Amino acid sequence: MSIQVAVNGYGTIGKRVADAVTLQPDMELVGVAKTSPNHEAELAVENDYPLYAAIEDRIDDFEAAGIDLAGTVDELVEAADIVVDACPSGIGADNKSLYEAHDTPALYQGGESADLVDVSFNARSNFEAAADADHVRVVSCNTTGLSRLLAPLQEEYGVEKARVTLVRRGGDPGQTGRGPINDILPNPVSLPSHHGPDVNTIFPDLDIDTLGLKVPATLMHTHSVNVTLESTPDAEAVADLLDEQDRTFLIPESYGIDGAGKLKEFAMDRGRPRADIWENCIWAESVSMEGSDLYLFQAIHQESDVVPENIDAIRAVLGTADADESRETTNETLGVGL
Amino acid sequence: MSIQVAVNGYGTIGKRVADAVTLQPDMELVGVAKTSPNHEAELAVENDYPLYAAIEDRIDDFEAAGIDLAGTVDELVEAADIVVDACPSGIGADNKSLYEAHDTPALYQGGESADLVDVSFNARSNFEAAADADHVRVVSCNTTGLSRLLAPLQEEYGVEKARVTLVRRGGDPGQTGRGPINDILPNPVSLPSHHGPDVNTIFPDLDIDTLGLKVPATLMHTHSVNVTLESTPDAEAVADLLDEQDRTFLIPESYGIDGAGKLKEFAMDRGRPRADIWENCIWAESVSMEGSDLYLFQAIHQESDVVPENIDAIRAVLGTADADESRETTNETLGVGL
Repeated sequence: MSIQVAVNGYGTIGKRVADAVTLQPDMELVGVAKTSPNHEAELAVENDYPLYAAIEDRIDDFEAAGIDLAGTVDELVEAADIVVDACPSGIGADNKSLYEAHDTPALYQGGESADLVDVSFNARSNFEAAADADHVRVVSCNTTGLSRLLAPLQEEYGVEKARVTLVRRGGDPGQTGRGPINDILPNPVSLPSHHGPDVNTIFPDLDIDTLGLKVPATLMHTHSVNVTLESTPDAEAVADLLDEQDRTFLIPESYGIDGAGKLKEFAMDRGRPRADIWENCIWAESVSMEGSDLYLFQAIHQESDVVPENIDAIRAVLGTADADESRETTNETLGVGL
Repeated sequence: MSIQVAVNGYGTIGKRVADAVTLQPDMELVGVAKTSPNHEAELAVENDYPLYAAIEDRIDDFEAAGIDLAGTVDELVEAADIVVDACPSGIGADNKSLYEAHDTPALYQGGESADLVDVSFNARSNFEAAADADHVRVVSCNTTGLSRLLAPLQEEYGVEKARVTLVRRGGDPGQTGRGPINDILPNPVSLPSHHGPDVNTIFPDLDIDTLGLKVPATLMHTHSVNVTLESTPDAEAVADLLDEQDRTFLIPESYGIDGAGKLKEFAMDRGRPRADIWENCIWAESVSMEGSDLYLFQAIHQESDVVPENIDAIRAVLGTADADESRETTNETLGVGL
């Protein structure tokens, strides 16, 4: 019998995870829960996804909007083998008791605290650690991107120290209330940023310092990466190693892709849903070695790179596949791999 | 007798240098040269700065615009003890033979190649090196900002290695044809960027790797700085050292300045000409030590931080003052120091 998956929260991440669940041969989408009858609620209806009210008090709002509900989030969680919590940061923590009440294991997103959960998760780095866990956090888009990069470097060359400047998009395209406009904000101003400690939830012993800035862009994050390796491979060998990974895209110089705009154009031209780019996009020309210092630039699509990770985390928790099997199935069904 | 200074090019840098020259007790502005009768040419007239035609063929354009010329650039250079070339990148190189023909020493801006000149200059780092040179390059805004930072660190603690990500404004506020819009561009994509080698024109033996990106902002550049020191001072000592420098501004946490917009507002509130910020603006809270790794953020005002450096370079070349005297005079007359 298929894994019965509930998705609580049907926004940027939730709607993508729900679609991905429906593509899996071993999963079935029980339904999605939503707080308000906005355009995304209408989308769930159009997709024939059973829609549940995330907040009981707001059932009337859905009725007023002419949207039929399948029930409340309580019923959804009860019916599921596992729930993917894709609510805004902090709401996941509020929902924990709900999942515990129904004895349903839960995945949370990277905006929640690492302390909330039994294990923080990245499919490439620590798939096995999530086995039988009740509460698992799929790390944030940036930490996912860094983990995918650091895992093979750690395995192949050893990492003496990583230093990363994250040039972050100010908000997603739909987050019209966010900034900055025409500015470059150190954010946080105090160092290190939270990203380094977050990477340590996946690689506890890794020496990493991170700095973050926010800029007036919405499409993708960009990382300026330095990794001091414990050996001195040539740049070509490092590029080959990164190219071999299943969720990386080494952007060929010949493509003429200079930034996130052209990356999204590339994704749209290939018919990707919502122009999603699940892979770390690493500029091949940027992969450079200076002594034992590796440098490179990578772009990270904040709205989608965690989607395959959520799918893998479902199997990791329930023990229905090993890491390689799961990632292969996820990649094939979604079309991950450039 | 005062030093007779000519300014060839009356744009972003030239107009600021010309104003700064008029404030010096030991200098006199012979005049400024300009290629076309635009709003800045009108400004020179309003300021009673003798205006010379940079290109003989265009003299008629000035007449047509009703602007009286004092002569051609040839006459300007002949009348001067020294010329500050503030023409767009690459034009300085074209002008070199003109200055040689008149045996007039020349300062060039950072957009010119280091190979063009006898010495690259930063007042804090190598004032004496410019003595009696015929051709001196005042390094770019970014290299000036890095040199001011690295000089005291090098002297006080020793620098093992510097790694800097330069998050660059896409263009100045008036450069309406430049981008990017809503994107983050690795630029250059291939590493290292030219900034590291440019810093090496001032500190030949310094180990430095730099990475550059361009973002949709116009106000200031922002540097994400890592310097591995040869010793391990505490962060407070480093902050104090940087605060003591004459052309740095340690932004106090209490000021609530989160980016370049508020820095410019701060400068305007204090009546600074053109809202110029000649100092490196270093966020005090960001100054951090992790082992021997120093981290900090600094913002650099690309339009103005080289202005006091050009003034000092004039005295350095002509040998009329030593480094401390010159910088003190420049700082006092301009109002440098926050």
